[in-house]
Amino acid sequence: MISVDRADLAFQLFDALPTASLAALPRFADYDRTAMDEVLDTAERIAMEHFQPHAAALDLNEPRFEDGKVVMDPQVGAALAVYREAGFFGAGFDREWGGAQMPETLLGAVNFIFSMANISTAAYPLLTAGAAHLIASFGTDEQKERFMKPMIEGRFFGTMCLSEPQAGSSLAELTTRAEPRSDGSYELTGHKMWISGGDHEMSENIIHMVLAKIPDSPAGVKGISLFIVPKFLIEDDGSLGARNGVALAGLNRKMGYRGTTNAALNLGEDTPCIGYLVGEPDKGLSYMFQMMNEARIGVGLGATALGAAGYRASLLYAKERPQGHLPGNWNPESPPVTIIEHADVKRMLLAQKAAVEGALALLLYAAFLVDAIKAAPNVEAGHDSRLLLDLLTPIAKSWPSEFCLEANKHAIQVLGGYGYTLDYPVERLYRDNRANSIHEGTHGIQGIDLLGRKVMQENGAGMKVLAARIMADVTQAHTHRELAAHAEELAAHLGEAVATTGKLAGTVGTDPRLGLANASLYLDMMGHVVIAWMWLRQAMAALRKRGEGVDADFIDGKLATCRYFFLYELPKARTQRALLDKLDDTTLAMKPQWF
Amino acid sequence: MISVDRADLAFQLFDALPTASLAALPRFADYDRTAMDEVLDTAERIAMEHFQPHAAALDLNEPRFEDGKVVMDPQVGAALAVYREAGFFGAGFDREWGGAQMPETLLGAVNFIFSMANISTAAYPLLTAGAAHLIASFGTDEQKERFMKPMIEGRFFGTMCLSEPQAGSSLAELTTRAEPRSDGSYELTGHKMWISGGDHEMSENIIHMVLAKIPDSPAGVKGISLFIVPKFLIEDDGSLGARNGVALAGLNRKMGYRGTTNAALNLGEDTPCIGYLVGEPDKGLSYMFQMMNEARIGVGLGATALGAAGYRASLLYAKERPQGHLPGNWNPESPPVTIIEHADVKRMLLAQKAAVEGALALLLYAAFLVDAIKAAPNVEAGHDSRLLLDLLTPIAKSWPSEFCLEANKHAIQVLGGYGYTLDYPVERLYRDNRANSIHEGTHGIQGIDLLGRKVMQENGAGMKVLAARIMADVTQAHTHRELAAHAEELAAHLGEAVATTGKLAGTVGTDPRLGLANASLYLDMMGHVVIAWMWLRQAMAALRKRGEGVDADFIDGKLATCRYFFLYELPKARTQRALLDKLDDTTLAMKPQWF
Repeated sequence: MISVDRADLAFQLFDALPTASLAALPRFADYDRTAMDEVLDTAERIAMEHFQPHAAALDLNEPRFEDGKVVMDPQVGAALAVYREAGFFGAGFDREWGGAQMPETLLGAVNFIFSMANISTAAYPLLTAGAAHLIASFGTDEQKERFMKPMIEGRFFGTMCLSEPQAGSSLAELTTRAEPRSDGSYELTGHKMWISGGDHEMSENIIHMVLAKIPDSPAGVKGISLFIVPKFLIEDDGSLGARNGVALAGLNRKMGYRGTTNAALNLGEDTPCIGYLVGEPDKGLSYMFQMMNEARIGVGLGATALGAAGYRASLLYAKERPQGHLPGNWNPESPPVTIIEHADVKRMLLAQKAAVEGALALLLYAAFLVDAIKAAPNVEAGHDSRLLLDLLTPIAKSWPSEFCLEANKHAIQVLGGYGYTLDYPVERLYRDNRANSIHEGTHGIQGIDLLGRKVMQENGAGMKVLAARIMADVTQAHTHRELAAHAEELAAHLGEAVATTGKLAGTVGTDPRLGLANASLYLDMMGHVVIAWMWLRQAMAALRKRGEGVDADFIDGKLATCRYFFLYELPKARTQRALLDKLDDTTLAMKPQWF
Repeated sequence: MISVDRADLAFQLFDALPTASLAALPRFADYDRTAMDEVLDTAERIAMEHFQPHAAALDLNEPRFEDGKVVMDPQVGAALAVYREAGFFGAGFDREWGGAQMPETLLGAVNFIFSMANISTAAYPLLTAGAAHLIASFGTDEQKERFMKPMIEGRFFGTMCLSEPQAGSSLAELTTRAEPRSDGSYELTGHKMWISGGDHEMSENIIHMVLAKIPDSPAGVKGISLFIVPKFLIEDDGSLGARNGVALAGLNRKMGYRGTTNAALNLGEDTPCIGYLVGEPDKGLSYMFQMMNEARIGVGLGATALGAAGYRASLLYAKERPQGHLPGNWNPESPPVTIIEHADVKRMLLAQKAAVEGALALLLYAAFLVDAIKAAPNVEAGHDSRLLLDLLTPIAKSWPSEFCLEANKHAIQVLGGYGYTLDYPVERLYRDNRANSIHEGTHGIQGIDLLGRKVMQENGAGMKVLAARIMADVTQAHTHRELAAHAEELAAHLGEAVATTGKLAGTVGTDPRLGLANASLYLDMMGHVVIAWMWLRQAMAALRKRGEGVDADFIDGKLATCRYFFLYELPKARTQRALLDKLDDTTLAMKPQWF
């Protein structure tokens, strides 16, 4: 029912981006184009044969909480066993620790494929990788050996435990406590909430990465430390020991993403809950931000994959479903056309294609920046890429969460009544995607991150890097007659966006409440400019391929969708800037009692 | 959990509209303000005590198809029995037939209340009233006595059977056939699909209003006739006879609106299916359009009610949930604020308030037009109201379906992770609301109806009536210093919208495919202008109340929300007009193979 558009994926990886060139770097020497294609083939095969078939059933039979344990459709574990066998758990990790040392860009494409097929099942290894990365970056060698290596092997799964019932967006309000024990470990007490993959029976162990406060630490976010809390304690020989005091209190029943357990956990309620400090005390949040940034890009990629799955399903339907006549043909005896012939259906498909392929371009671009940073000979050489990645992260998380959800809405509409039923995947994809503007930092949090932090970093250096990269592409696009108008339009938008940013940033300095009041709209506006840039890049890549004997329809489709985005979507950014430039205080001035 | 904002409802009915003046008309003489308030009190009490409590359970335990019958939560039937006892089934019908002869405007408010509480349960009597209205308008006295009267009494329920598996939006492609029998009745054969309330065991009988083709009728929409098809045949003495050959083939499992059965029906498959012609042959579609127009306004009202329910639930949450600090307060020891203090939360609440109360104003305005038409001494006197109602109907259906769904999206976001769980109603409301841009004519169909039909009627006379009414309010608004800028802005938007309409209408005449290519966007654009008008009217009504000792917060809230709509929403209409004015053919020119 859902199929991966491998032609587009190859285009995105190897034409719009120089992913094949990564093989020139020693770290990625194994990954030439042939090897990368093989990885994608394997991912697609496993995703289609093992992940997709149970996606609908898993949604209908969500994991249940019975006798203190999670009861789950066994197809999830079976699919993940195949995934593990293929080595995907450790795909991005160093060979030194048993990983496959895949470039992040390729890994992005792999994750996109699995998430398209079944995002609920795909979430478990993605969460595990995120948790393992934290240990890789900040753990001791002993912690790596004991906890991380089995995660890379796919024997242990992982989670991140930030939120609590009373503290979701505001981590400053965490109350989970960690008391030092005489042996150097800690004993944790508290309640964690919204823990994806928080419990299940599919792995030998679950490694929770937990934020908690050590007594006498500073108040707020500066007094948070990071701990490793295994579900089962681990003996010195690596074997599993006693059950640790991290207990499943319940599972949240959700609108979507239902196959991924989402748990409330009690720490240290009946049994002591032992944790191991990672890195230094009170630095937990800064460590966690590494994983959060990675997770945020992962959320954007997931949102894009869900959008893509809906797009492909609705495209297939539109090509096969006959109904209606075109305006001007009033002969009721003539046979109906397939609905893809109707302008409004084309519009809804174009809107999906523009959102999904635009978002995918951005997510892979971000992944390529990660590779560029890793490949840089020193910190200085990777500095610009790091700044740009920091700036793009809230956009890469939020834009797809918002506009690929909108794409899923269109997918339902293309199928009409059928789209609203459980007989087709599109309604499920829409429900799944609604999570993405909430978890890993809400849309509002991302807006504040972008406007209140990222555009300010190093005196606006990130915006300068962004502007320089966009202008380099604009200059190049000007050489294509067909793209000159778009290039000019993008340059104008960029100039205005920089001016709006300056105005808002200045206000944030003098009156943070007013400056940040419409940060969410600023985020959407910047997202549209960035996605327009991604479309210009795709259009250029398409033109480069013209004459190379490539499918002309593919190229024409890219150019038409670029045009669609520039005409139908990008102008909205100007409307939003006009509002932002006013520094309007309507939302801020609204009093609670006026509602 | 969900509560009705009676203060706003009273404001909408009696301040923004002269609903109380209807009592001066002989038809509505019983409905003075006191009587209307009593009706609303009764509706609210029944809705809150009998409809709301089972809304969540009904969603979780949707009606099932077992042994050829529908198994449903008995609370639905119990609630509808209370509703019936209170006389709401016949609320809008003539006293002559046992109805309560309520004004449509009041009835709109009543339906709004029940739909807020539980739209799935409320759907059954609303569908019944729609079906009964068709018989009231086009049936014989005998048909009224036999079929309609028991519907008014709430003993029989009703449905409308238009769609078929192969023909949803395109009724020209219907294939259900009706063969005349010697006794003047017809025998029907075919398959009907998406029939809301299509089967259940809650009423003595179900009266289906079925579209079918009589042999040798013209092809297409000109050869469709309307039939009464009872589930049980009715003897001459009014008692129930044999089971008629309309058989439940299955129930659709849906994303939302799950308590309302949605059935596939087989006509005349095993048992002959007897039907009775309504009115003249081949006029079925024009008859049905009466019901469809009524149903479309009903859909808009339902979408608004769902939006309102979400708004109220998220407002309550935002006022009670403490979390986070305001920008500029960096003291982590200070207590968290309630989240309604955060500008982004206020924005999401404002967006909901603007959408919901703007849409409600439009729906009640449309209902008032129905009353004005009924009250007109002759057809001529009601002519302008009829034209305006025709023009506003696709907007009244579609704008709330789109933007109150968006409101429900915001409601989830205000609750964060909690909003994504089944513990709160907001995710269910969002799922329910997703149906409304599909059923009773999709969003795309409404766009074509507005641009291809309604604005063309009588040489654009409907647009002239609309423009005249808006300008009358603009002139009046100019006298309020606080509203002069909004009035000016609305006048400018109206002028531009009229120009865009002329341009598009001209193109529809010469090149219908190009002219109608972006009809959906035209629909959204016109919707924004109309809702801005509704907000200007509300703001004026609020100012009129100032000084009358009315709650100042209520008035300030209306003015602030009007301002929000004019600043944050209305400018989008200009962006869309710029696109529409281009007569851009990007969507039209997109080839299927380019996707």
